[in-house]
Amino acid sequence: MGHWATLKKTTTETLLQQVASEGQKLPIAERRNFLKSGILLAGGALAGAGIRESKAADENLPPNVPPWTRSLGSGVLTNPYGKPSRFESHIVRRNVPWLTADRIASVSFTPLAELSGIITPSSVVFERYHAGVPDIDPDDHRLMLHGLVDRPVIFTLDDLRRMPSTSMIRFLECPANGGMEWRAAQMDSLQFTHGMLSCCEWTGVLLSTLLAEVGVQKSAAWVLAEGADGSHLSRSIPMDKAMDDALVVYAQNGEPLRPEQGYPLRLINPGWEGNTCVKWLRRLEVGDEAWYHREETSKYTDLLADGRARKFSFVQECNSVVTFPCPEKPPTEKGRYELQGLAWSGNGKIKHVDVSFDGGVNWREARLKGLVLPKALTRFGLEWDWDGGPALIQSRAVDETGYVQPTYTQLREARGSSSIYHKNAIHTWSLHEDGKVTNVQIS
Amino acid sequence: MGHWATLKKTTTETLLQQVASEGQKLPIAERRNFLKSGILLAGGALAGAGIRESKAADENLPPNVPPWTRSLGSGVLTNPYGKPSRFESHIVRRNVPWLTADRIASVSFTPLAELSGIITPSSVVFERYHAGVPDIDPDDHRLMLHGLVDRPVIFTLDDLRRMPSTSMIRFLECPANGGMEWRAAQMDSLQFTHGMLSCCEWTGVLLSTLLAEVGVQKSAAWVLAEGADGSHLSRSIPMDKAMDDALVVYAQNGEPLRPEQGYPLRLINPGWEGNTCVKWLRRLEVGDEAWYHREETSKYTDLLADGRARKFSFVQECNSVVTFPCPEKPPTEKGRYELQGLAWSGNGKIKHVDVSFDGGVNWREARLKGLVLPKALTRFGLEWDWDGGPALIQSRAVDETGYVQPTYTQLREARGSSSIYHKNAIHTWSLHEDGKVTNVQIS
Repeated sequence: MGHWATLKKTTTETLLQQVASEGQKLPIAERRNFLKSGILLAGGALAGAGIRESKAADENLPPNVPPWTRSLGSGVLTNPYGKPSRFESHIVRRNVPWLTADRIASVSFTPLAELSGIITPSSVVFERYHAGVPDIDPDDHRLMLHGLVDRPVIFTLDDLRRMPSTSMIRFLECPANGGMEWRAAQMDSLQFTHGMLSCCEWTGVLLSTLLAEVGVQKSAAWVLAEGADGSHLSRSIPMDKAMDDALVVYAQNGEPLRPEQGYPLRLINPGWEGNTCVKWLRRLEVGDEAWYHREETSKYTDLLADGRARKFSFVQECNSVVTFPCPEKPPTEKGRYELQGLAWSGNGKIKHVDVSFDGGVNWREARLKGLVLPKALTRFGLEWDWDGGPALIQSRAVDETGYVQPTYTQLREARGSSSIYHKNAIHTWSLHEDGKVTNVQIS
Repeated sequence: MGHWATLKKTTTETLLQQVASEGQKLPIAERRNFLKSGILLAGGALAGAGIRESKAADENLPPNVPPWTRSLGSGVLTNPYGKPSRFESHIVRRNVPWLTADRIASVSFTPLAELSGIITPSSVVFERYHAGVPDIDPDDHRLMLHGLVDRPVIFTLDDLRRMPSTSMIRFLECPANGGMEWRAAQMDSLQFTHGMLSCCEWTGVLLSTLLAEVGVQKSAAWVLAEGADGSHLSRSIPMDKAMDDALVVYAQNGEPLRPEQGYPLRLINPGWEGNTCVKWLRRLEVGDEAWYHREETSKYTDLLADGRARKFSFVQECNSVVTFPCPEKPPTEKGRYELQGLAWSGNGKIKHVDVSFDGGVNWREARLKGLVLPKALTRFGLEWDWDGGPALIQSRAVDETGYVQPTYTQLREARGSSSIYHKNAIHTWSLHEDGKVTNVQIS
């Protein structure tokens, strides 16, 4: 009881005074609106103006009744396809201007600090592509499935939509998420340190269903997925994954895929590198070995300290980050808050998250909140009293395989520091006495 | 294998011919685009125009390579807050023009036939309100919690956002959903028969947490919830529900509530009538009895055959509907399809759904697909071979309490036919030989 320091505890009597003073704090422009519409006038001025402006009502109005309570709003279908409040226009994807040479082969980041729950709204799912977003007419789009199969097929969208569908809530992450953190670029922004990460409900047809339809031949071991955009991004997917949970997706959060997410068709390999989840999917070829295409050799391999490269590093391993407090959402004063964060693992469910306020010396167990789904974002929370002192805030997640999110030292011992991919080291926010939150790296 | 009749089974050889002929079927305008950009020209014309238009590539192009594969698309942040493909502009809320006198106190319907999975995109969640959508500045919005409590409080949005949050995926349904069906108006449209129904991930603070904060007095038995819009919609909520799963919500599908859904704050009473989930929530008053306000006496009560009215009929009981085939999405030819539908219950999880193709004489068990959550939409599917004959297609859901969705006869025996609320009778789509689907009522 009474933990939440800013709550205005009061008696009913002072409550009414508070209501009055809240009214006085409204911006001048809005108070002018009050006066213009007559609400603050003593009765009579608007008599006859209709029951909504009746004298009797005016006489009994406290001064804090805002204009929206005294007027009619906009009608249904003002926006047949709705949009956010104008007061939330800051919740958008953003980019880092110096990160890529142009916007066509580039990336934008999800505003994680502003989001709640585990679903990422489709409108702010991060973008990453290599030749821009194509404007595809779904009636002219085809998916060819061929190679080491008995009955090669070209599917239309209608063909796929009449087949048994599967829906799953799964995260999507670019393996370069946090890549800027490997070395020196420490951005004071959750959006830029972790924002190549989103989580949606995906609906489509299991790739295993399509493969059963065409008859996979005995020597088949890999499936090549190829995009219809100008970059023709291609990735080789092992048959085990193809037969497990790989999904040929046409819908995202209930509606058709968004253009920048691969409309009308993409692959989702749950828990795996985002680039394997080929967008604008036009071709699946079954083969007996991997293709070693451009985006799985010169890119999306991890250069190790000894000069060798880790290839086909598909899985996005267990990771987590604190989303409040963070640079975009600092605490506003001393007192009690719920610290929040997100954890995820490409190997299954999150089992456990600990939080440290002293840079990893002491740990407290966080509460996993809401749905805990495999290969999905999992939100955690922890009640936390900020005493106004400095803190080094970290989270450390463990997944159901027992894998523990590593420290930077552990990650660098295993992978060196030349890679830009698969940075899942424990992240640190430095909370300063003035409430500012910055990004620091603790080994 | 080979069940899906429209799939073009082929050998690799005829596959290539098919690819060629698909290309010829592209609209003239698009073929002109090909010619304009030189893709169909024999090599040389574009030599020197850059590697993306190289001669070698042109010479090897099959004729079906669409323009979007041969060009750069739009860059990141073309839409910092993304939107659907222009080819999906038909997926919008719609209204029934004759249903209400104006658009201010009106309703719009969710396009259920076009949606996948269980999440309803926030942009097409149905609208229902009584004085239009207010344009509320969240900095000036307050929630007052008072009445039979020890420490009345006025909350700001920031106060609520720092408290422990809870997220849950739950359906939202207007009790008048299907109301037009009670009597004669049988619309050939899933959007209008069942579209006052949506399902979102809601995030906020449990009402029980707020009540614990202010200290509920012993005589407390009800909580009044009141909206800040011009209609001040008010509903009395029993304390049991308030202390169970009632949620004071500020976010929907990850982002802040949409204006037409109550931005910046609404109540969600999971599984209960949508109108109890008061939007633009500004006041919660704890009392010792119900208030009997306008929207729980003259409205939102169910007039029975004997002239009495059922009051406080809060729960949206077990219901279901087939979403494919339906009037908006008929089958296009004979062959195998996955029939799909949605089931939901305000009393818990869906346990079982059966489907009939002969108006309720014979039933087949459907498969529950994806997440089966309490008080959430649950999607079901059933593989189905359409032989081209007529069919009367129904679904019948059972929830975890054992409640079985009633027939019209059973519903009318219990409730008469004067009500417009709580129509959850088994629904029938009539599939005609020409593939058309219409809405019929079978008792």
